[in-house]
Amino acid sequence: MTNPTTITAEPGLPFVDIVREFDAPAEAVFRAHTDPKLFARWVGPRNYTTEIIEYEATTGGRWQYVSRGQGDEAYGFRGVFHTVEPNTRIIQTFEFDGAPGFVSLGTLTLEEVDGRTRLAIHEVYPSVEARDAAVASGMEYGIKEGYERLDELLAR
Amino acid sequence: MTNPTTITAEPGLPFVDIVREFDAPAEAVFRAHTDPKLFARWVGPRNYTTEIIEYEATTGGRWQYVSRGQGDEAYGFRGVFHTVEPNTRIIQTFEFDGAPGFVSLGTLTLEEVDGRTRLAIHEVYPSVEARDAAVASGMEYGIKEGYERLDELLAR
Repeated sequence: MTNPTTITAEPGLPFVDIVREFDAPAEAVFRAHTDPKLFARWVGPRNYTTEIIEYEATTGGRWQYVSRGQGDEAYGFRGVFHTVEPNTRIIQTFEFDGAPGFVSLGTLTLEEVDGRTRLAIHEVYPSVEARDAAVASGMEYGIKEGYERLDELLAR
Repeated sequence: MTNPTTITAEPGLPFVDIVREFDAPAEAVFRAHTDPKLFARWVGPRNYTTEIIEYEATTGGRWQYVSRGQGDEAYGFRGVFHTVEPNTRIIQTFEFDGAPGFVSLGTLTLEEVDGRTRLAIHEVYPSVEARDAAVASGMEYGIKEGYERLDELLAR
């Protein structure tokens, strides 16, 4: 039994909100988002591998990775970290090379209660249409399966 | 006679759109946004001085400045550059220290026609309320007077 992932995309607004609980302390969830070796082990769907190009998860740092599926399938992502506050908050930009110029901004917050951690991400897109296109691209599948992989990593 | 500055904030959406023409080539307008010495000479209202803390206007670079008015009045701003494409586009985050954690993302585009340049900025805020608060804070006055100062700098 995994914890549910809630993804909300209210019509007419350019936001996506993601909420997920993890049976682990905030420090461990934070580390899995900021240590590039750990991050590469869980992000995205199971049948993809993640190649980190750069990943400096500190305020003002840059990140870039390529997600590779079967055959020649490869998707590139990059951005910058506006804010990285240990164990509590990460604010970063996000651009998919399949939609160049359409940059979103995400604020991730972690709250620990009794050793469990509630992760919440609030994403803003440059337009409602860009948000709708991101949702339609299958982001939900990758997010949910990624978090299942993160559960497994945190349980080790 | 200065060119008009159009600032649009449609109700119910978290965007601000700014459009302004300059009687100068795109290269000069771009330089005034990316060279910290030039930028400090025009940004903000006339009765403020701008102290640059850091300003690396390249993809992945950081920026931070303090705007000082009369007496002890001081406002801090900081962010990161997601994309800097010479003479055409700057995508950057923006945070005012009076509203910590409320980060906006702006895309500035420059289009040159017959030696004049049309500047357009599309800003997205984390909520409609945060956008409304930014507009209510008097951003319009600072933007318009700043662009008049930029006109004067470009005319030299």
